[in-house]
Amino acid sequence: MNRPTVVRTRDELRNVLAPARRAGRTIGLVPTMGALHDGHLSLLRAARQRCDVVVMSLFVNPMQFGPQEDFASYPRDEERDVALAGQVGVDVVYAPDAAHVYPPDFATFVEVGGGLTDVLCGDPGRRGPSHFRGVTTVVAKLFNAVEPDVAFFGQKDAQQAIVIQRMVRDLEFNIEIVVLPTVREPDGLAMSSRNAYLSPDDRVRARALNQALTKVLEVAKAGETSTERALAEARAVLAEAGIEPEYLEARDAENLTPVTRFGPRPVLVAVAARVGRARLIDNVVVDATPANEPMAASVDTTGGAPCVGRC
Amino acid sequence: MNRPTVVRTRDELRNVLAPARRAGRTIGLVPTMGALHDGHLSLLRAARQRCDVVVMSLFVNPMQFGPQEDFASYPRDEERDVALAGQVGVDVVYAPDAAHVYPPDFATFVEVGGGLTDVLCGDPGRRGPSHFRGVTTVVAKLFNAVEPDVAFFGQKDAQQAIVIQRMVRDLEFNIEIVVLPTVREPDGLAMSSRNAYLSPDDRVRARALNQALTKVLEVAKAGETSTERALAEARAVLAEAGIEPEYLEARDAENLTPVTRFGPRPVLVAVAARVGRARLIDNVVVDATPANEPMAASVDTTGGAPCVGRC
Repeated sequence: MNRPTVVRTRDELRNVLAPARRAGRTIGLVPTMGALHDGHLSLLRAARQRCDVVVMSLFVNPMQFGPQEDFASYPRDEERDVALAGQVGVDVVYAPDAAHVYPPDFATFVEVGGGLTDVLCGDPGRRGPSHFRGVTTVVAKLFNAVEPDVAFFGQKDAQQAIVIQRMVRDLEFNIEIVVLPTVREPDGLAMSSRNAYLSPDDRVRARALNQALTKVLEVAKAGETSTERALAEARAVLAEAGIEPEYLEARDAENLTPVTRFGPRPVLVAVAARVGRARLIDNVVVDATPANEPMAASVDTTGGAPCVGRC
Repeated sequence: MNRPTVVRTRDELRNVLAPARRAGRTIGLVPTMGALHDGHLSLLRAARQRCDVVVMSLFVNPMQFGPQEDFASYPRDEERDVALAGQVGVDVVYAPDAAHVYPPDFATFVEVGGGLTDVLCGDPGRRGPSHFRGVTTVVAKLFNAVEPDVAFFGQKDAQQAIVIQRMVRDLEFNIEIVVLPTVREPDGLAMSSRNAYLSPDDRVRARALNQALTKVLEVAKAGETSTERALAEARAVLAEAGIEPEYLEARDAENLTPVTRFGPRPVLVAVAARVGRARLIDNVVVDATPANEPMAASVDTTGGAPCVGRC
């Protein structure tokens, strides 16, 4: 594969995309913070398959990191990321500087409310809704800079995907959002750029996140309707690995209101936990609606995981 | 001229614009709340001259009205507005219902800060910054629904124009913003849909707003450098007409910080006042930079005035 064209400014980006846009070719965007793993690659491959032109953005967005978080240490290796992007057929890598994205008197924010951003990873006692404000603001900017027909996000950051879908609907962006399944390691751990922070011991313990969620799927499939009882079993799995979750909750998969029973609407079961130096997240969707083979899609291990936002 | 095509939904709008967009024709947008006057018409004529396709939006945006304001009584006459739009060559009128623009669980807002929205018309003691949040949110939606190349606003709503220009820059909308001069009645009163609220007596008194601002231009041209002294003279003109302004202030014309002296940067002098039932606004820009014939453009009476937002 060819090396992608790397551009640093929105003007360069628009210039390089102009001929394709004039010719009516479709443009796909995969927003990333780099440190690419197989989750990102599955998004990029899907974009390659679906669109005429594939743009990957590569920007570690300071606005979505809290003051106590790992912005400074977040893994950065542009050369490697660009090479990997080239291997899966990315045409353009948009890698702007922070000063280009946020001029000194930057003052505009896009904020999604509606109970979607102040729960789970946005809970004021955790990262707070300003995390998602950072995500939606930068994604709105990327949407306007790239003007894609389709943008690809991963189900690993489930709350982020829900928030972005709401933003797209509410602000009427003319962009199709595709959310692809979480990609996992062979032992079930969700792919994440932050897995690199795990010591060998922590790497073993981290398997418990997926195991706990798989337990929820199992007991729900076996007929358990109480989310509380299912979550208690999951909590036991985590405890056995010495993991105290930051949260482990069952919420409506569309509007994130708390749910006490599985079905008829799909239920998002989401977990966040610190394992050693890494803050990890994972989730499954329990879908007991009659039309679906219960939960079959939720344990898919072949799809994509995102990392534009992190949670 | 032909009657414009009137569409009610963003899907209809996109369908009707699709052939022009595919053909690479330029699209101009003039956002309005209807009740068209010569200010709007000057914006529409400029769009007609500049762009291949002219879209006028017609939407009285509830989100930018405060609870004590005139949303219910705001003048509405779609038939007349569509006919006038047809006379100046508008191709498409986008007139959505409020329920289409704001579905029940609408939850996303675009907010400009940076000291631009909490002063003058956004002062918390007056309309408050939520007015401009309503403006920027609906304008962002209109931008995404129409995807214009150029959008036209009027200098009468000077603060609104500044806020929208900042939003466009910060969120990287690929849209050129054109701001056209205020259009005035022969006696100097700025055109506004709200002038219809004025009784014959109030209509006479309302001239004092422009007279007060013209006084500022005169004394600045005569060498007065203190904004405070110039504003005092303007206040005297208002007082003579029995008008107590809601505000009368001199601020940097770009970032809206208060200024005490005219020059070297352009100074916005803005006034708001209730005259009878109408809340009216007006402004001039005092530009003493050497490159400009001082203030010549500021008293232009042939350009356009906006009314998407109101202040």
